[in-house]
Amino acid sequence: MPLKQVILIRDDLKLPKGKMAAQAAHASVEAVLRSEKDKVKEWRMEGMGKIALKVENKTELYRYLQLAKDNDLVCALITDAGKTVIAPGTETCLAIGPDDEDKIDELTGKLKLM
Amino acid sequence: MPLKQVILIRDDLKLPKGKMAAQAAHASVEAVLRSEKDKVKEWRMEGMGKIALKVENKTELYRYLQLAKDNDLVCALITDAGKTVIAPGTETCLAIGPDDEDKIDELTGKLKLM
Repeated sequence: MPLKQVILIRDDLKLPKGKMAAQAAHASVEAVLRSEKDKVKEWRMEGMGKIALKVENKTELYRYLQLAKDNDLVCALITDAGKTVIAPGTETCLAIGPDDEDKIDELTGKLKLM
Repeated sequence: MPLKQVILIRDDLKLPKGKMAAQAAHASVEAVLRSEKDKVKEWRMEGMGKIALKVENKTELYRYLQLAKDNDLVCALITDAGKTVIAPGTETCLAIGPDDEDKIDELTGKLKLM
């Protein structure tokens, strides 16, 4: 089964694209560093499939964080240091996986592409 | 000396923000996986400083790739599979580091924020 990672990004913050890219990268790397090495290796060999999805707001972001935890999926919630564009401590995005595509899709399949 | 990673993204492709976020994450993760574990560990403890910068086009992207290589900096050039928005094989972005902020800035200090 192919592996994938999803990066859920808050749409309500209207992050500038470069800021969004850096935050997404932050979440992605942190989730990778928290994952089992063998899983990361396999995912890397498959091409490291990943996709950015949008969540409406902080509440929805936390709902998916809980869902991921309930399903024992590795995840990384990112809180911005807030030096530039947004207030310190603002939750910006959440990476889930890499894990089985089916598992990930079951959780986040309803979300739209960012 | 603090460590940082830069992610250089082509501005001419006018990537949709979600696509840009996923490509930047791709570059960031790949450069991390290519880096020495101790350096990644240190960078992570410092907060994994990273920033997205813009390059004008493919030529400029390759110029920075060469510069990074000439300076023995770990880097990862990302070529998109092109399933969605852009043509297959399109070079989208380049992550450099994590490495010493001074070294990175010396190379990419003139680039503007994406």
